Amino acid sequence: MKYDGDGGGGEHPDGRSRQPAVSFAEPRGFSRVVRSKLMETLFPDDPFRELKNRPVWLRVRKGVQYFVPVFRWLPEYRMELFKYDLLAGITIASLAIPQGISYAKLANLPPVIGLYSSFVPPLIYAVLGSSKHLAVGTVAACSLIIGATVGDAVNPEKNLELYLSLVFTATFFSGLLQITLGILRLGILVDFLSHSTIVGFMGGTAVLICLQQLKGMVGLKHFTTRTDVVSVLRSVFSQTHQWKWESIVVGTIFLAFLQFTRFVSKKKARLFWVSAISPMVTVIVGGLFAYFAHAENHGIPIVGHLDKGLNPSSIGKLNFDPKYISASLKAGIITAMIALAEGISIGRSFAIMKNEQIDGNKEMIAFGMMNIVGSFTSCYLTTGPFSKTAVNFNAGCKTAMSNVIMSICMLFTLLFLAHLFSYTPLVALSAIIMSAMFGLIDYHKAFHLFKADKFDFLICMAAFFGVAFISMDVGLMLSVGLAVGRALLYIARPAVCKLGNIPDTRIYRDVEQYPNAIGAQGILILQLGSPIYFANCNYIRERILRWIRDEDSQGRVVEYLLLEFGGITSIDMTGVETLLEIKRILEAKGVKIILINPRIGVMEKLILTKCIDVIGREAVFLSVEDAIHSCIFSLHKSAIAQTKSEEIEMV
Amino acid sequence: MKYDGDGGGGEHPDGRSRQPAVSFAEPRGFSRVVRSKLMETLFPDDPFRELKNRPVWLRVRKGVQYFVPVFRWLPEYRMELFKYDLLAGITIASLAIPQGISYAKLANLPPVIGLYSSFVPPLIYAVLGSSKHLAVGTVAACSLIIGATVGDAVNPEKNLELYLSLVFTATFFSGLLQITLGILRLGILVDFLSHSTIVGFMGGTAVLICLQQLKGMVGLKHFTTRTDVVSVLRSVFSQTHQWKWESIVVGTIFLAFLQFTRFVSKKKARLFWVSAISPMVTVIVGGLFAYFAHAENHGIPIVGHLDKGLNPSSIGKLNFDPKYISASLKAGIITAMIALAEGISIGRSFAIMKNEQIDGNKEMIAFGMMNIVGSFTSCYLTTGPFSKTAVNFNAGCKTAMSNVIMSICMLFTLLFLAHLFSYTPLVALSAIIMSAMFGLIDYHKAFHLFKADKFDFLICMAAFFGVAFISMDVGLMLSVGLAVGRALLYIARPAVCKLGNIPDTRIYRDVEQYPNAIGAQGILILQLGSPIYFANCNYIRERILRWIRDEDSQGRVVEYLLLEFGGITSIDMTGVETLLEIKRILEAKGVKIILINPRIGVMEKLILTKCIDVIGREAVFLSVEDAIHSCIFSLHKSAIAQTKSEEIEMV
Repeated sequence: MKYDGDGGGGEHPDGRSRQPAVSFAEPRGFSRVVRSKLMETLFPDDPFRELKNRPVWLRVRKGVQYFVPVFRWLPEYRMELFKYDLLAGITIASLAIPQGISYAKLANLPPVIGLYSSFVPPLIYAVLGSSKHLAVGTVAACSLIIGATVGDAVNPEKNLELYLSLVFTATFFSGLLQITLGILRLGILVDFLSHSTIVGFMGGTAVLICLQQLKGMVGLKHFTTRTDVVSVLRSVFSQTHQWKWESIVVGTIFLAFLQFTRFVSKKKARLFWVSAISPMVTVIVGGLFAYFAHAENHGIPIVGHLDKGLNPSSIGKLNFDPKYISASLKAGIITAMIALAEGISIGRSFAIMKNEQIDGNKEMIAFGMMNIVGSFTSCYLTTGPFSKTAVNFNAGCKTAMSNVIMSICMLFTLLFLAHLFSYTPLVALSAIIMSAMFGLIDYHKAFHLFKADKFDFLICMAAFFGVAFISMDVGLMLSVGLAVGRALLYIARPAVCKLGNIPDTRIYRDVEQYPNAIGAQGILILQLGSPIYFANCNYIRERILRWIRDEDSQGRVVEYLLLEFGGITSIDMTGVETLLEIKRILEAKGVKIILINPRIGVMEKLILTKCIDVIGREAVFLSVEDAIHSCIFSLHKSAIAQTKSEEIEMV
Repeated sequence: MKYDGDGGGGEHPDGRSRQPAVSFAEPRGFSRVVRSKLMETLFPDDPFRELKNRPVWLRVRKGVQYFVPVFRWLPEYRMELFKYDLLAGITIASLAIPQGISYAKLANLPPVIGLYSSFVPPLIYAVLGSSKHLAVGTVAACSLIIGATVGDAVNPEKNLELYLSLVFTATFFSGLLQITLGILRLGILVDFLSHSTIVGFMGGTAVLICLQQLKGMVGLKHFTTRTDVVSVLRSVFSQTHQWKWESIVVGTIFLAFLQFTRFVSKKKARLFWVSAISPMVTVIVGGLFAYFAHAENHGIPIVGHLDKGLNPSSIGKLNFDPKYISASLKAGIITAMIALAEGISIGRSFAIMKNEQIDGNKEMIAFGMMNIVGSFTSCYLTTGPFSKTAVNFNAGCKTAMSNVIMSICMLFTLLFLAHLFSYTPLVALSAIIMSAMFGLIDYHKAFHLFKADKFDFLICMAAFFGVAFISMDVGLMLSVGLAVGRALLYIARPAVCKLGNIPDTRIYRDVEQYPNAIGAQGILILQLGSPIYFANCNYIRERILRWIRDEDSQGRVVEYLLLEFGGITSIDMTGVETLLEIKRILEAKGVKIILINPRIGVMEKLILTKCIDVIGREAVFLSVEDAIHSCIFSLHKSAIAQTKSEEIEMV
């Protein structure tokens, strides 16, 4: 027995009296516990802290400012900020036009819908959004999902009107879901899309989209509507006789140009604008080339007619026909979640760089409003895409005013310049999309995951291969399923470790981690590291019994089992019963159970269920040290008693 | 600052040198970690411990004994045990005959199938099963599920042959699933059916079955095939003109008799056999009455013709027609899980009473074999039902031999006595089922749940009302879904608490639980209580920042944030990134982060991801006390430096 009792009571009975008392306070009331748990679950960031203890008028003002952030920043807006926002706004507009057209093509929508989607939603976000750097726009992954899901129900080439109405309906559902999640403060759901899932999902989508763009690059007219790598590749390579060399040459030149500008921007951060405006340059050069060379007659198809004028209303087009509603619901739900995950995580990342904070739930409401209003004004799903937001940030935007500027640029484009873009060669759009997608394949991150955490890597790869080879929704669900499964497995198989005393200290630590830690004779100290739940009760019982068996088989008889409960934050009814069961089994073997430091939630449950009375209040200690003291004292006493009785017998 | 540094270094720089070293050991190899995790997940009870370090012949013998327990107990079987097993076997056989017939009716099967199911499976279990007390037989809940699920696909009254073949196929699937789970050691899946779910499910099923038995009690001929309370009640009370008063009178008498015997047995444990044989008495008396009074002519229908002879083979009847396979698969999977949960938990409960241990995975293999062989020999799903096992236990069974005795009794019954049971009135069977079901409605337990844990009560009620008012599978899934959701919510919102020093000790505990605990100036100690996972990263970041804000708003400037990691058993990649993010945010606010006691899995991950180098190895401590020492020393030093520089300025 190597117990180093410096300053403690040693093996003296006084040891007990010096021990600090364990709190057996009456359990808190049910309503209080529920209230505090609900607060923790839904309002972890305590959003209304600024409203507490203020006069009414201030509370109203702060409240309005809280819900409509534009009232917070606009009154303080100064001209010197405007020049930054103006520059940033024009830069992102120059990116928004080609991207808008390209991604609309990805969703099988008329290109002008992409332009519409960069006009109304940014205005809504400028009023309701809480991020200063987020630039609103359409995203490739969601465009593809909408195209694939709604395309399954209606062929856009055969019935464009119906297809359009279903896309707007899907956007409406997205917005409704986002706003509902925001109001119910269920940002927690987005938390279940882990970084690993997103990396894999983005990578898989990017590969898929790149391969799809081969259609435009080689100038094909007919193409598969399926979105998996095998179908897409088969579609490309089964039509080699249809390939147009002109298209391939032009496409390769554009792609090389775009990649070169990306390379330049990457090398010199100050030259970020080179890659930011390169898509616009590509579109303009491509358009001029197509106009003067009559490219459409030489195997290079162009975008074609673009309507002049602002967004027409599309309220009347929303289609709730039960025949099609499942397609638009599915597209709406999946894209809503992905858009939220992307928009919120990106807004958050940039806010962190500037040491600001973003309220995810408020952002959800902003995104939701944006999409609901969008679905009324001929827009499809928008969020805060990474590429645009990064450009906005680098261009030095200061407030959401940059979104307003972009919107105004789109206004002019829609009113006066739209027809100029009708000459844009499709191959230029394909090159723009491919170039953007290359940046989303984050193989560095995947490699990092592989090195650091194999299971996270597996989650990432499940998303990647699921998206690439099966379908986008299956890939996503597979990956989230694995991640949730891992979390459940953690609950089901919590770490249990044996503690020992680190010599010359009063500290007790895991003997596997600190091999010099020493156990005490007759005493086994186990640290449990998770809530005791229905899902792990059997495991915990088996594991504890096995520890005792192992000790016995090594010739160390266990008389006291000390369970360190400090890591256990909660226990359910099955858990309480298991605890009693363990006590019963061990008592039959002559082993006494001692609990150490049950935390508040656990202690309340033990008191409520009267379990504490069965275990005995004297068998609960505040620290391992106290418990060891007491055990050693008892062991010592019983040894003396035994010696005495042996002496008596001898007499 | 109330730090009580008895024996420690106090505010002396030596404090650091006396501190025990934190282990920064090289992470264990990937394969070693995976191997140890797999072992923990699948072999928590280390089943092969007896085979280690033994000679080959002993290992083979022990191995065979391990997999086929009959080789363990049969060689040591003595005659004096036999008399106990004989008595117990006859007792459970007298229960098995009426229950077998009744539950077969519940599954819309010919009554003789129920008798077959008590002949072959018990023999298989006697060879492979590891429980001494388990009595094998059919169960009401599973019978009802089979009837409802397979009945949805095929109407048993119209095409009995097909219906039978699908039931055998479902049984085959159940067995296959059970055996697979057992071999893969996935007993973990059964753990997800918590006590609360089972209490609610059993209660709901019992209520449903009781109401269904009103059909037999009032002597109805036509009845709904749906299994929800509303449909069943409507079916009963819409046919009041069909009610037969004779049936009601006879049924009430039987029910009163059965309930009275249960009451007697409950009052005096020694009279357990009174209730055990009462169903047999009911059947015999009912049969005699029906035979002599020609009851079937007076509105009291009887069971009707029962085939003589042993189980015919049913291998050829297994039906894998894709048209029906989904029904038999669904019935097979649901009943397999419920049967496992019931059988294993019951076997375990009785083993605990005798301080024995049961290997859940081995039991699964035994149940699986039992059902596969059963499906080949005209049996349907069997498991270890509570009622029978309790009778077996009370009758003093010593080994699985009692199952063999029961089987032999069934052999005689099938060969010679079957036709005697054809006179059993259906109303007697209904009374037997109802009486058995009353015992399964555990309202005491439900009330206990309500008092101790509202959420467990909710899980229980979800199962109860789901089963009673929607359908058995929906109720079960609803309840399991709630339980899993709660577990996930726990992961997503782990408890974070602020620690303070308990006066006159070196112990740091939750200030909410121990209100006398005192914080140190400039230092905030937070204890995290869960793995840091993708699902809780955002929450943990928000929560930590809020703690710091709260401290600031109360005028206590935080200079050091101490994070107690002792309760954290693992961290994933998203978690590591969040930790770095928190560090970045706090550094900008001038707050230093210190980690205390990261456990082995966490430390390995921090080293692998190089996160530890960013945080700094000098910012990791083994105990709160050490960390506080070091912080106070630094605070003190900087205070002195400040005073000095102020002095210099003043000079």
